[in-house]
Amino acid sequence: MNKIKIMINGIPGNMAVNLAKHTLADDRFDLISQSLTGPEITKDEHLIDSIPIRLIHPDVREQAITEIKEKEGSFISVDYTHPSAVNDNAEFYAKHGLPFVMGTTGGNRKRLEDTVCSSSIPAVIAPNMAKQIVGFQAMIEYAANKFPDLFKGYSLEIIESHQKGKADTSGTAKAMAEYFNNLGVPFSKEDIKKERDPDVQKNVWGIPEKYLEGHGWHTYSLLSNDRTVSFEFRHNVNGRDVYAQGTLDAVSYLDIKVKEGEKGKVYSMIDVLKGVTTAGQTQKPSFLKGYRSRSPLF
Amino acid sequence: MNKIKIMINGIPGNMAVNLAKHTLADDRFDLISQSLTGPEITKDEHLIDSIPIRLIHPDVREQAITEIKEKEGSFISVDYTHPSAVNDNAEFYAKHGLPFVMGTTGGNRKRLEDTVCSSSIPAVIAPNMAKQIVGFQAMIEYAANKFPDLFKGYSLEIIESHQKGKADTSGTAKAMAEYFNNLGVPFSKEDIKKERDPDVQKNVWGIPEKYLEGHGWHTYSLLSNDRTVSFEFRHNVNGRDVYAQGTLDAVSYLDIKVKEGEKGKVYSMIDVLKGVTTAGQTQKPSFLKGYRSRSPLF
Repeated sequence: MNKIKIMINGIPGNMAVNLAKHTLADDRFDLISQSLTGPEITKDEHLIDSIPIRLIHPDVREQAITEIKEKEGSFISVDYTHPSAVNDNAEFYAKHGLPFVMGTTGGNRKRLEDTVCSSSIPAVIAPNMAKQIVGFQAMIEYAANKFPDLFKGYSLEIIESHQKGKADTSGTAKAMAEYFNNLGVPFSKEDIKKERDPDVQKNVWGIPEKYLEGHGWHTYSLLSNDRTVSFEFRHNVNGRDVYAQGTLDAVSYLDIKVKEGEKGKVYSMIDVLKGVTTAGQTQKPSFLKGYRSRSPLF
Repeated sequence: MNKIKIMINGIPGNMAVNLAKHTLADDRFDLISQSLTGPEITKDEHLIDSIPIRLIHPDVREQAITEIKEKEGSFISVDYTHPSAVNDNAEFYAKHGLPFVMGTTGGNRKRLEDTVCSSSIPAVIAPNMAKQIVGFQAMIEYAANKFPDLFKGYSLEIIESHQKGKADTSGTAKAMAEYFNNLGVPFSKEDIKKERDPDVQKNVWGIPEKYLEGHGWHTYSLLSNDRTVSFEFRHNVNGRDVYAQGTLDAVSYLDIKVKEGEKGKVYSMIDVLKGVTTAGQTQKPSFLKGYRSRSPLF
């Protein structure tokens, strides 16, 4: 089975580096040892598990990508760069015929989608690459559509904790607040309680010290107005490994779509979830095998 | 608006009595002051909020029901009796053309359904009348169908607590275990952890003393194999009020179906959930109004 070549853009950023490590450890993939990087990065190389990755600065990327395409043939690009670069990068990928997985949040999402739709490439665009969380959101969305007002008369509390550096409220928590509104619960996104204090995270929440710098914990608590019935939903992520795993599944999914000749199409993680399942269950057992034990890290 | 007449069978059983209290307190309904009861009950009357309910023993029920039908006209029967009586009672309701809501568990469920399908009445049959729990189960079932293997590589723990008298494992927990199997998690129903010790329930779980004799608490915990991602779902019910509320919504739903002329049809709580929603949102605001503040107890 041919390995899928991946170019990961955004090194030396945390998420891009973590993904590169997972890619190196996963025998489904070959990592291209070059990465588009931002104008603020001054060095030309970054070591990942002692493998040197050449960092391509914006001013030389046109020339560099032509050489990479000549050398590598077809590959999938993954973007974990910066919100300010989202649209420009997407246009760059489209112009050069590079199918991509966009893991970077922010930018103009409508324009991002339009860029792909009017291009000759397919892309996976997903603000959250954690498949299980995406699946959980899909469940709640299903209930909101199918049983609006299911939780009418209930009160809601949403609390979330993320690393100190994260200034804004969790996007997942905000999306969930909207679903709960549709389920009959009045709740304003401003009422989501954010925890950013490492002391409280460690001592009150019990978040392990090594993950204080990278975690996303969410709890949604519903209480009936007579206080006899309560529901609680939690999803707690430590570190960034689950996002890397989901990204690699998105790459595998996109690779299939490229080989099927799809063009100008945007896929979501929901598509990936369904695709992974189908692949694993009926057609491509080797894909599922890769999915099961993807990395010696686990 | 005409009130819906209800005959509640199974008094003086806990659930039937609780439902009768809710019915008396809800101005959508009129309670018929007679109740089919079991052969083991020796008294002829039971007081509910100082209202005497005549208890009809099995040997006189044929005669009694004919008189009740003559006096009351059309009404909805609700069955909260005993697992051993489920099929016999359903055949009794069918024979006398009495649309019914079956809240009693056990019996031969296939035969129960067949009884309705070959009759001239519609019925709501639901082993769990708590609408929010039914909605939650529907969500998980949706995910299991749509994203099988979503939680592949995760381990699962299910713990539940019920009143000391409940010998068997929670039926809801067992149904959920199956959904999680379909989501890729190997788990045997025998591994569900049951708590039936009131001391542990009170001191470890924190279940309020007044609910030790009637509660259903469930927690499902998922952990990824690399231990970096966890999910937790809980639904905790104290007392029996939520089941009474759901039962009365089922009665309202069935009353609409009777008036629409439906015959020989079995409805589930999922149908009721959708029906309540539809009624509340588009066609019958008065129904939702009743749903909102159904009882001075809350």
